[in-house]
Amino acid sequence: MKRIYILGAAGSIGEQTLDVISQMPDAFQLVGISLSTDHYKNQSILDRFQVEICCLRVSDDLPFYEHKYPNVQFVIGDQGLLDIASYPKSGILVNALSGSAGLKPTMRAIESGKDIALANKETLVMAGDLVIEAIQKYGVKLLPVDSEHSALWQTLKGESMDDVLKIIITASGGSLRHLDRYQLDNVTLSDALKHPNWSMGAKITIDSATMMNKGLEVIEAHHLFGLPYDQIETILHDESVVHGFVAFKDGTMKASLSVSDMRIPIAYALHYPKRVDYPHHLELSNLSFKPMDFDRFPLLKLSYEVGKTGGLLPTVMNAANEAAVKLFIHGDISFLEIESIIIQTVQNHHHILHPTLEEIIETDRSIQKHITDVYRKR
Amino acid sequence: MKRIYILGAAGSIGEQTLDVISQMPDAFQLVGISLSTDHYKNQSILDRFQVEICCLRVSDDLPFYEHKYPNVQFVIGDQGLLDIASYPKSGILVNALSGSAGLKPTMRAIESGKDIALANKETLVMAGDLVIEAIQKYGVKLLPVDSEHSALWQTLKGESMDDVLKIIITASGGSLRHLDRYQLDNVTLSDALKHPNWSMGAKITIDSATMMNKGLEVIEAHHLFGLPYDQIETILHDESVVHGFVAFKDGTMKASLSVSDMRIPIAYALHYPKRVDYPHHLELSNLSFKPMDFDRFPLLKLSYEVGKTGGLLPTVMNAANEAAVKLFIHGDISFLEIESIIIQTVQNHHHILHPTLEEIIETDRSIQKHITDVYRKR
Repeated sequence: MKRIYILGAAGSIGEQTLDVISQMPDAFQLVGISLSTDHYKNQSILDRFQVEICCLRVSDDLPFYEHKYPNVQFVIGDQGLLDIASYPKSGILVNALSGSAGLKPTMRAIESGKDIALANKETLVMAGDLVIEAIQKYGVKLLPVDSEHSALWQTLKGESMDDVLKIIITASGGSLRHLDRYQLDNVTLSDALKHPNWSMGAKITIDSATMMNKGLEVIEAHHLFGLPYDQIETILHDESVVHGFVAFKDGTMKASLSVSDMRIPIAYALHYPKRVDYPHHLELSNLSFKPMDFDRFPLLKLSYEVGKTGGLLPTVMNAANEAAVKLFIHGDISFLEIESIIIQTVQNHHHILHPTLEEIIETDRSIQKHITDVYRKR
Repeated sequence: MKRIYILGAAGSIGEQTLDVISQMPDAFQLVGISLSTDHYKNQSILDRFQVEICCLRVSDDLPFYEHKYPNVQFVIGDQGLLDIASYPKSGILVNALSGSAGLKPTMRAIESGKDIALANKETLVMAGDLVIEAIQKYGVKLLPVDSEHSALWQTLKGESMDDVLKIIITASGGSLRHLDRYQLDNVTLSDALKHPNWSMGAKITIDSATMMNKGLEVIEAHHLFGLPYDQIETILHDESVVHGFVAFKDGTMKASLSVSDMRIPIAYALHYPKRVDYPHHLELSNLSFKPMDFDRFPLLKLSYEVGKTGGLLPTVMNAANEAAVKLFIHGDISFLEIESIIIQTVQNHHHILHPTLEEIIETDRSIQKHITDVYRKR
């Protein structure tokens, strides 16, 4: 029986993780979770699963929860996430938090000997070098949960990285892929939130529309698989059926495919190295592939440059994106301003090659605050 | 340095095997080969490679060859193939013979401790149970060379057969795929020999047009991967880019792709487990998949039935096909008669569940002789 912790249990990935656990209750013990501000959802989860520790977003409702769930230890806010990460029992921590909030708990969980099932790509974008170093130092496993990275991980199974010519990450193009750049001026939030293939949280859906998501994934892949950026390609693939390709030096290419259901990569990470029966199987049909269009999607181009430069720059880009996406969701900026804010922020920021974790977290905080302050004022 | 033997060195697979060996001469020593009746081709091979033993098709020109290549031991005909198979040095025997002639040398090579790189699918179709038993008994490796089986083998790398839901073999549909059945009446040999994607020998090209080739591959896959027939599917795929899929129980599917170049699976088998640089890399473009049409291709349907029945029946079907294809190539029968001869022969033949190797070889011989006698007479 594997002990499981979920950060972001009430989010999209979190709920699908709970689904996977429910499918095989004998395989898992859910020890710790962090919840949302949605009381209905929170209670539904706490009613279904007997957890030992639970993190609430704010302390206001603590008395209510403590009264209703007397056997659960409740912890609060950012410190609460760290309390779960360092809970003194081993297991797999599923990091399904959205954005830069995922970094510190990941580091803490590694240091306390937990394996990490990582859906929070920002962790590796911001501090990939430090995270991989810690993974090796503490001898824990890093299990990708992103569909693309799970696909690449599975495709590389049994293979030697020395034989790899390149990896190719597929991109659906997101909700606005049918629009030219000059048509992006008047895009509404509701347009941007209509992903053609995947049902996901708001931030990642906007990130897909700007192709920032693919940029973050390229940087994530660089750290996960230890490949230089010139061995990581992206390709447009409307159907989101193939999630990743690996091209080998001998002319063979391998691919991993599935229906667009995050429970498949989640189950793979949690059951690893076992594969467990699942009812959603792919029916093969036509698959289309087009070269990536870096003019249409400048944030992907930027991601490669930022990734190659490394150091603090990926944190800068990620922070600018996170702040800008929040502003767009709140109606403060237009869709195209997401891009311009990110590009400007990256261009104007000073560069540190080997930042500490503290510098990374402080940079993230200050950039997000600055952008929010500037654009909220209007 | 690996010692290599090639049966059928002057054929299409044989020549491409020589190509692979020439690419990395330090990795291989070509010890033995069997040649053709084409003196020009034979001498070109003997001039390029210093082999120890060489099998000629007929003894007529033995004095000439012995005089020109005094350091080579020449052997003759069917017995010569067995002499190479049992040559007292270990190594990999590449069986690139066409048709049922491949079976006996494969068995002999296994018994003499050689690994088998198998391009001759008829070996497994006729005597899969006996061959796999011998492979296990003598502790040698069976390395698939067929592009589909190489793809499946590579896709299964690092995976457990217990996790496999099914394998899917792709089929281009061959040279006549654009024709309906009622258009097949007047198909000429030259029509049937125009394969859209692969440049191959005559027999396998005709087998592709009748879809018999895919039927033989299904039976081959059954033996190679130890899967029941209801876990082996086929799918129409015009582009011959994906060669095989493996669907796992957890909803993931993996695939292996490459350009249509037999040197890729040959190199994979010979260099295994290494992958060696090769210049022909795939450019991804659109891929089409359609369900197999068993009404259009009745020989594939027959192959499943014959495979499931097992015993002597696959040998009967294979022998009828081999004789019928020869008759078609010689202009004795029409394209559609290939099918009717095979179906009739299978329907009328008695069945033995556990035939010996001798019974298999005798059945093959007598069926081929009978069909040839009947249809050559006209």
